[in-house]
Amino acid sequence: MGYTFFDDTIVAPATVPGTGAITVVRVSGPEALRIVGDVVKCKSKSIESTPGYSIRYGIVYGDDSQPVDEVLVSVFRAPHSYTGEDSAEITCHASSFVASEILRLLCNAGARMASPGEFTRRAFVNGKMDLAQAEAVADVISSSNSASLRVAMNQLRGGFSSELRDIRSRLVEIASLLELELDFYEEDVEFADRTKLAALLDDVLDRVGNLASSFRYGNAIRNGIPVAIVGAVNAGKSTLLNSLLGEDRAIVSDVPGTTRDTVEETMALGGLLFRFIDTAGLRDSSDMVEKIGISRSYKKLSEASVVMALLDSTASEEENGTLISDIVSRIDFSAQKLIVLFNKVDILAPNINVTLLNNNVSNSDNKYFKLYISAKTGFGLDLLKNALISTQKDLTLDSGQTVVTNSRHYEALRKAGAALEKVRTSLSSGITPDLLAEDLREAINHMGTITGEVTPDEVLGEIFGRFCIGK
Amino acid sequence: MGYTFFDDTIVAPATVPGTGAITVVRVSGPEALRIVGDVVKCKSKSIESTPGYSIRYGIVYGDDSQPVDEVLVSVFRAPHSYTGEDSAEITCHASSFVASEILRLLCNAGARMASPGEFTRRAFVNGKMDLAQAEAVADVISSSNSASLRVAMNQLRGGFSSELRDIRSRLVEIASLLELELDFYEEDVEFADRTKLAALLDDVLDRVGNLASSFRYGNAIRNGIPVAIVGAVNAGKSTLLNSLLGEDRAIVSDVPGTTRDTVEETMALGGLLFRFIDTAGLRDSSDMVEKIGISRSYKKLSEASVVMALLDSTASEEENGTLISDIVSRIDFSAQKLIVLFNKVDILAPNINVTLLNNNVSNSDNKYFKLYISAKTGFGLDLLKNALISTQKDLTLDSGQTVVTNSRHYEALRKAGAALEKVRTSLSSGITPDLLAEDLREAINHMGTITGEVTPDEVLGEIFGRFCIGK
Repeated sequence: MGYTFFDDTIVAPATVPGTGAITVVRVSGPEALRIVGDVVKCKSKSIESTPGYSIRYGIVYGDDSQPVDEVLVSVFRAPHSYTGEDSAEITCHASSFVASEILRLLCNAGARMASPGEFTRRAFVNGKMDLAQAEAVADVISSSNSASLRVAMNQLRGGFSSELRDIRSRLVEIASLLELELDFYEEDVEFADRTKLAALLDDVLDRVGNLASSFRYGNAIRNGIPVAIVGAVNAGKSTLLNSLLGEDRAIVSDVPGTTRDTVEETMALGGLLFRFIDTAGLRDSSDMVEKIGISRSYKKLSEASVVMALLDSTASEEENGTLISDIVSRIDFSAQKLIVLFNKVDILAPNINVTLLNNNVSNSDNKYFKLYISAKTGFGLDLLKNALISTQKDLTLDSGQTVVTNSRHYEALRKAGAALEKVRTSLSSGITPDLLAEDLREAINHMGTITGEVTPDEVLGEIFGRFCIGK
Repeated sequence: MGYTFFDDTIVAPATVPGTGAITVVRVSGPEALRIVGDVVKCKSKSIESTPGYSIRYGIVYGDDSQPVDEVLVSVFRAPHSYTGEDSAEITCHASSFVASEILRLLCNAGARMASPGEFTRRAFVNGKMDLAQAEAVADVISSSNSASLRVAMNQLRGGFSSELRDIRSRLVEIASLLELELDFYEEDVEFADRTKLAALLDDVLDRVGNLASSFRYGNAIRNGIPVAIVGAVNAGKSTLLNSLLGEDRAIVSDVPGTTRDTVEETMALGGLLFRFIDTAGLRDSSDMVEKIGISRSYKKLSEASVVMALLDSTASEEENGTLISDIVSRIDFSAQKLIVLFNKVDILAPNINVTLLNNNVSNSDNKYFKLYISAKTGFGLDLLKNALISTQKDLTLDSGQTVVTNSRHYEALRKAGAALEKVRTSLSSGITPDLLAEDLREAINHMGTITGEVTPDEVLGEIFGRFCIGK
């Protein structure tokens, strides 16, 4: 694949020095064990003679031969390590001074500081994992709920990769049938059975399409389903957000127009991740800063999958009417769901049974949900949570379906799908095999960028550059 | 010593989850390997059959039998572990969600969350380290310069403890001589050679005294030598601090009275740590907040080891005269050093050679240093740094001298010293051995509190409670 062999040894902290009880420093490369052995002195066996998957206790001495720290060294030998190279992990006390001394001593002994993601990049280049798996490492680290972790773990453990390999091998099979035909083109022989080819192609198209469409779900569990909370100034949007999340996340005050910028918080409901977006109150304002806030609210509204319109049930019908028609006019009901909430029902009717009240609210045309709540007392919030889950009832997957969470993968799948559609159309219209083969090669190429078989260096640099140092 | 055997297994993250590339979770206790084995599934050998100082790769499965993470488990077997118990360290991806899942699964399998410092407390109780060594763990973690690290490492590695043990055994030797005499008191026999006892006691007193007096140095390298920067409003105190530290640490503005609260920054100079304390400008003010700031400045001045009085050399002689006599009147010259700085010399005489200017400044009575500087251009700052080092020239140690950095240890040494002084006096005045023995026992007791031989449980609780979770 044209990759260069790594002849240098890299080092970086794998945990943040100065926090917690211990810091772990990672070393990887052909000289890793010699370098660590130079810096860490052990009583009995040396680091260099230590077998893989074992631990040594030792002392790091500074330039002045004074002990810097007592450490443990975990030794890994190529190819049985994360990077596939000789590696070591030094566990020292969590002092940033101690960690920086150890890093300095390792660099003096011949190592160099790693760039972000360089350990994982080496793992990829050394064939320990493909690109989709390497990207899953970052996804596992950033996963915040069981659904996103499950998908990331499946991808890390190679589930997604094996599906891609399978699709790719079928495409190669089709391509070789076509290319064989191409070789004998002069003889005007049609080797490949066009009906069989079409069936094979339809199957692959189906699978690529399924993967691409799983991205809507994948993106939802990874980034959360965006839910915009919009409404009148002082209708209680921040209070609602706090009540839903059970903590004081947004600043709540009695002064109208407090929430000028947008606040985002996530919450798992019914196995899905919802991302709540608090917005500035909608009202005519002469205040420049507030005006910007309001136009930002409209933007957030248009980007959300679910819009929660919060009305003050103690306000006049006219006021609420104007507001709700403004909101409704901005919603794309083909892609967005609306939940209309009448808040402050505790003030309106303190002794009312909110559950009964809400039972009488019909969701007549299934176009939107309507609920009476009290953000302050918590009345009706359970019903609101159920309504939120209901808005996503079409967001389901066949069990066992691989989920795409990465927009780079989604783009590649979309492009591969488009190329395959062209092949499919050409096939029906009896086009010459050389043109078919070209589109097919393009599709294979796009599939290959996902696992890194045909990924250009600059794309790799961008992917690994987003990793943290030490990973 | 009356300590209870630990029959439960504790667990805690040893690094902060959610930061860096990996998180390490620690498990220790009689059930540690069984519990970790329940949670982490390995391909070949189980965790329970893994020898100490080796590493296993395994997978953590959640309640739903879905993989939570791929991990490495480092196994340590009693007594060859940090705590002296069976222990394991699980290295997982640095996701707080993954870490909390693993912690939850470990607790479900029978472990419980550790309290702060509980791992180190177990190490202490199980005889892996004495109390002074345990306290040094926290010192190593918080060390920020090579001098404090060296002292902490010496203490961690038992240098201080062995010196204390040596002193204690001499005291016990003296005590047993006296107690032997006590047994035969009726017979009026004087077994112990009083001259020899006095010599032994003088030696011990000397050593205890040396240790106690090393605390001034120990405290200086650990917490820094406090240097208060005082002076007129807008004399350039914050600018001086920034120039010295080479970064924008204090807010510098042209509005007089900007620095209302005190800012503290440390800097290593000549192997010593200086702690600079920026203070509010001294002037008559009617502003309440500023008044509080000024009275706080006087307090910081009185607590500092070195006072840097910053004068605006472009101000009137009268103004500066009033200010300096105010400052001088508040300094205790027996314990504090004064450096008088004439700032803004770049405005006063832009083309002046500051080094020459300062060469002509005599430090006549050695009572204080006087320097012309420009905080803005950096003129004279090297000379200021030398002056700061000079103020501490009596802060030296015999090489090889053990340094006390912990105020608890200092207090114990001071009390032991006082009791020994009483013994010494009594010895000279020919007092009865039973009274001598009592004071001696008190001294032995105080020495024992340092290493934890006679430390009450509540003191232990306080010491370990200051540790972080996972240590």
